[in-house]
Amino acid sequence: MNDTLTVRLGERSYPIHFGADLTARVREAVAQLAREGRRVAVLTDRNVAARQAAALKAMFGGAPMLVTGAGESVKSFAELERVLDFLAENRLDRAGVLVAAGGGVIGDLGGFAASSWLRGIDFWQVPTTLLAMVDSSVGGKTGVNLKAGKNLAGAFHQPRAVFIATGLLATLPPREFAAGMAEVIKYGLLGDAALFAQLEREPLTVTSPALPAVVRRCCEIKAAVVEADERELAREGGRALLNLGHTFGHAIEQAAGYGEYLHGEAVAVGLAAAARLSARLGLPAAGTCAAASADAAAAAAGSSAGDACGTDAAGAAAAGADVVARVERVLAAHGLPARLRAALPLEALMAAMARDKKVRAGAPRFVVLSSPGASSTRADIALPLVESTWRELGAE
Amino acid sequence: MNDTLTVRLGERSYPIHFGADLTARVREAVAQLAREGRRVAVLTDRNVAARQAAALKAMFGGAPMLVTGAGESVKSFAELERVLDFLAENRLDRAGVLVAAGGGVIGDLGGFAASSWLRGIDFWQVPTTLLAMVDSSVGGKTGVNLKAGKNLAGAFHQPRAVFIATGLLATLPPREFAAGMAEVIKYGLLGDAALFAQLEREPLTVTSPALPAVVRRCCEIKAAVVEADERELAREGGRALLNLGHTFGHAIEQAAGYGEYLHGEAVAVGLAAAARLSARLGLPAAGTCAAASADAAAAAAGSSAGDACGTDAAGAAAAGADVVARVERVLAAHGLPARLRAALPLEALMAAMARDKKVRAGAPRFVVLSSPGASSTRADIALPLVESTWRELGAE
Repeated sequence: MNDTLTVRLGERSYPIHFGADLTARVREAVAQLAREGRRVAVLTDRNVAARQAAALKAMFGGAPMLVTGAGESVKSFAELERVLDFLAENRLDRAGVLVAAGGGVIGDLGGFAASSWLRGIDFWQVPTTLLAMVDSSVGGKTGVNLKAGKNLAGAFHQPRAVFIATGLLATLPPREFAAGMAEVIKYGLLGDAALFAQLEREPLTVTSPALPAVVRRCCEIKAAVVEADERELAREGGRALLNLGHTFGHAIEQAAGYGEYLHGEAVAVGLAAAARLSARLGLPAAGTCAAASADAAAAAAGSSAGDACGTDAAGAAAAGADVVARVERVLAAHGLPARLRAALPLEALMAAMARDKKVRAGAPRFVVLSSPGASSTRADIALPLVESTWRELGAE
Repeated sequence: MNDTLTVRLGERSYPIHFGADLTARVREAVAQLAREGRRVAVLTDRNVAARQAAALKAMFGGAPMLVTGAGESVKSFAELERVLDFLAENRLDRAGVLVAAGGGVIGDLGGFAASSWLRGIDFWQVPTTLLAMVDSSVGGKTGVNLKAGKNLAGAFHQPRAVFIATGLLATLPPREFAAGMAEVIKYGLLGDAALFAQLEREPLTVTSPALPAVVRRCCEIKAAVVEADERELAREGGRALLNLGHTFGHAIEQAAGYGEYLHGEAVAVGLAAAARLSARLGLPAAGTCAAASADAAAAAAGSSAGDACGTDAAGAAAAGADVVARVERVLAAHGLPARLRAALPLEALMAAMARDKKVRAGAPRFVVLSSPGASSTRADIALPLVESTWRELGAE
């Protein structure tokens, strides 16, 4: 397996390095910066600092390190300012590099800090969770939360390098590994039917021999989508497809209170919701159904492939129910929820959705499925259909 | 006079509209957004809200408006979060537009808010101070202050349109008009000898018939420099030339405590400091002196022109002293300080400089003058020369 993948974004292109253990590679890259007179600072959280103390020491030596608390509450302006004060204290100039070593929270916070410090310095991602490895460390979305919702403030700021050392997952708590699997399942659903089928045949665990290749495959899909639509400007499809399950998922996180669901757990429920909503919409449409050949390039171009295979509305309804059942089975096989764990108020969920970033001129955009591997964006969905979907998931 | 100037930055290009009264033009632009279903929100400060109540009402009608306190302390993360909460309350989506109607503080804060809200929405600048009209509203630098220094956090985020209505200056307090003149004088010094000579011949006042043309000329110079080096990446010259007087000026603001000097007042002292430092460096160098033909394009390319006219070191020293005297006279003629008003500790000033954003690999960069109209950047200046300059200005 080639151990480097390049995300091609012109002057913002960068390598993603893969390996079981990248300690030596990171250490050498840090040494190279030192030779160039460039300062390095590291951001991590207390869990990673504890679990990966030896790896951090081996990679970064005595570089200044700021250790935050753990969890979503760290993605705040107060904490952002703390990171920037830390960069000031350590005199990072415009040639400096901030390394985000941690999960999605640390990557989002560190990336936004790097984006704003002196109006932008380089940063590296060293993801330590499955979710960060397959999703949040690639693509340049950074940010913090506001009272009104998640990731409402931030920047597009691509990393200069990503180091994905899958060996770091050995110390990841099972609940967090499962949460990361929600994003892996998402990639299968949105544009890679073969990946989804593989997860159906053989659920992934932290010791699966297939894990490194699956992580890399997710990064390939994400890179292709981001290359085609870096700033999520496509009218249809494009980067918004990566939000499959997220319009529902973000609403769950907000309505339940951040921290109640891990992000991936909320996304898992959101994937089941997207499948149910798609079935309610009559997808796959009568006269069509999706083939298993969809790929990320087609997904980025607008929607992933959907070839003829059905013949009537009843057949479509049965196909839709089948998609829902397959999604729920895969989620369960990976220890993920497909319904709300406890009832949440419908009103709060709908209000959170209305505030979603994807809203344009008043209409929320949803990502819907024709089949596992074939997705598209829709901005024309009647709210009663969404409410019915929420009720099926346990909203009141 | 053509009433629009375009800042050419590819897909980030935008118009600067000029006029004594642009109320009708802004109102029509706001109405156009409404026709497109795009929401508008306005940020201003309490001084502008009071002095320009009628103009704001005429331009923006009932659009939601957030009124901040006045002064540099508003450029904080706490206030940024307040602006973002305001955008959330008013449900600005990605098609929304934030208008910054005020001076440099409001433009910097509003621009950073627009840059971070949903990872970036459009914003307009409606500058109400001379300083904002000639400098801060053009070029896309936005940001807030940190404990460690001014503008240390921010983003490059170009406005979509700038509306410069010089009639708004009628209500500007004289002290603020003078502060804006420091930036006007800066443009003459850094790359337009004819402009500097004009200011020497006939100091500008708020009622000068020449004022609108001078404001436009400053915007032309700034636009040319920004077009050549949008993100201040040039190794020499380029956008950093716009910081003539600012390395000293920022240090004064920080050492004196924000609010003690208006930004333009600190820059005025900084311009005198830059002239003194240049003279200490023996500029114009023996065997050369600058001609009056320097222009902004040359400035952006590296340094502005310097043609042969001197013959020996004594001549150069005399020429340097002459530049200092001319700068001080122009500052005085515009009611601006050329020395510290009260002594400040040398140590604090030098420490503030060491934290300046322009520092690269440990070396502060200074903009120096060969003559009024001819400037260049230097990263090799011995600190004792800087300390001596500070002492001449009244540091202890």
